[in-house]
Amino acid sequence: MHPHFHTLLPKLEKALAQFPIPDQPANLYDPIRYFLQLPGKRIRPIFVLMTQELFRSIEEGDWVPSLATELFHNFSLVHDDIMDKADLRRGFQTVHKKWNEPTALLAGDSLLIFAYQALVQSNTMNLVALIQRFNEMSLAVCEGQQLDMDFSEMELVSVDQYLEMIDRKTGALIAFSFEMGGFLGNASAEERLALHQFGHAMGRCFQLRDDYLDLFGNERLTGKKRGGDIGNSKLTYPVLLSLPHADFHAIWDRKSTEAESRIQDALSWMESNGISHEVEKLIASEMAIGMQLLQHISGQAEAKSKIEEVCKMLAYRDK
Amino acid sequence: MHPHFHTLLPKLEKALAQFPIPDQPANLYDPIRYFLQLPGKRIRPIFVLMTQELFRSIEEGDWVPSLATELFHNFSLVHDDIMDKADLRRGFQTVHKKWNEPTALLAGDSLLIFAYQALVQSNTMNLVALIQRFNEMSLAVCEGQQLDMDFSEMELVSVDQYLEMIDRKTGALIAFSFEMGGFLGNASAEERLALHQFGHAMGRCFQLRDDYLDLFGNERLTGKKRGGDIGNSKLTYPVLLSLPHADFHAIWDRKSTEAESRIQDALSWMESNGISHEVEKLIASEMAIGMQLLQHISGQAEAKSKIEEVCKMLAYRDK
Repeated sequence: MHPHFHTLLPKLEKALAQFPIPDQPANLYDPIRYFLQLPGKRIRPIFVLMTQELFRSIEEGDWVPSLATELFHNFSLVHDDIMDKADLRRGFQTVHKKWNEPTALLAGDSLLIFAYQALVQSNTMNLVALIQRFNEMSLAVCEGQQLDMDFSEMELVSVDQYLEMIDRKTGALIAFSFEMGGFLGNASAEERLALHQFGHAMGRCFQLRDDYLDLFGNERLTGKKRGGDIGNSKLTYPVLLSLPHADFHAIWDRKSTEAESRIQDALSWMESNGISHEVEKLIASEMAIGMQLLQHISGQAEAKSKIEEVCKMLAYRDK
Repeated sequence: MHPHFHTLLPKLEKALAQFPIPDQPANLYDPIRYFLQLPGKRIRPIFVLMTQELFRSIEEGDWVPSLATELFHNFSLVHDDIMDKADLRRGFQTVHKKWNEPTALLAGDSLLIFAYQALVQSNTMNLVALIQRFNEMSLAVCEGQQLDMDFSEMELVSVDQYLEMIDRKTGALIAFSFEMGGFLGNASAEERLALHQFGHAMGRCFQLRDDYLDLFGNERLTGKKRGGDIGNSKLTYPVLLSLPHADFHAIWDRKSTEAESRIQDALSWMESNGISHEVEKLIASEMAIGMQLLQHISGQAEAKSKIEEVCKMLAYRDK
């Protein structure tokens, strides 16, 4: 990861570890402490702080508010894991698996409230607008999760529908994180909008890279077997590019009783038909849009370069 | 109900019906619209507005913010119904029953976000403090729900533990509603604290009246069979007063195979031993505490009388 990332991360982890979470009732707060200390990249608060650094340096009181994005992210993970009946998250037991569903439900609710507790401490001249934007982002994430669940019951969705879904489910929080940095730096409304649009493009890059790595990643680097999304019949961008082709459709429609050969045949078809290259092209195009937007934002040149470098590292990561 | 209640209610219902809830995705927002239009007393926003009237009259922009309490209440009901596996709410199907659990989970999350959307529109000189108090109230409600679930696995809890649980699970939002009226009326910090304490006492009265009506209510008025809480082995205040007595304990411990006779015997024992009177005594004592607090709050005498009358109607209701 980028060196500046490693400068910010320890202080952020310290702020997160010190975030005041009560002891009692233990059945409510132990699961929250457990989940927050699972290993995570903490990229969202890092985006907040790196964006703020475009306009002013980080002060003592800025760490906690930036955590609003991380707390919100963890809220959505805990609840998504319930909805998706997932047993593992980041290699560890999910909250509803380690405890039970009511506990995970309530732990998630409390994490959302903690996010607002952090957010309201933001040092900005536009606190009300910041909270309103946070509310809008939060609803967009819920909408994205609902669309994702809706899609899982559908035979086919369009590429546009898919992009709209990921823009909300994962993109909205990334976009908000950059925008929040603009609020903390007291950037103008125009610049905050540009930061949001920049973050929107970056959110697409990161999610498309996720989709890419699942299918075309190097297993030794990712540590995960390729094609998990195919096994789960998940309609991701590369799959949606392939499905209009009858050859691929025939493979995709095979019964899951031959799961492993189905995955291998689907991957072979995609490789022979340049699908990985198509995904890379969309990532590059979104990256170009983002970089153009970033150039027109005022602020320190050095801080801007760091944002660019970190985003490119994430958009072109191989694990 | 009190005539002033009937003056406010139609405008409040109108504001709630007009609260901007998007159409799409329908699987997210239809359940929310369904749940919000179920019949409800809407006492919490009414408390907000009646308390504001102590200090200033209601303006056009005050209806929506007061709904934060109602939206929050509905959030907690939707999630509690999942946790309690309840099929019915106010005589209608619960969200997770009519749709499914993931939908109810996400609908609840969105209702909590809508509550913040309403809250942040409050016309007060102390918006940040108001949001912080809302956050604290929200966590207290989650804690109360967790304690309630913890208690359901325990053989016995103390009366103090029970009161602490209901103070959070149902009292915190009642207390906040009165306090929020103080914020909207720009009351002093001391008066807002007194309003909170007043609401805390009223919350106890209302919950204890619930417990009372379940066991000692007139079935023709309540429309419900007496003793449901005994059937569910729920540790309510009247039960906790009775359990130290060996005679009652023996009845309570009987297997649920003889459910009906167990309920009848428990009710008979309570009636012969003056338990209903004990509950009424605690309600009267909390009411006296509340009325003393209310007298020391400034504001229009007429508005104050209305608050007193509405609270007494609810604390001494027979259905």
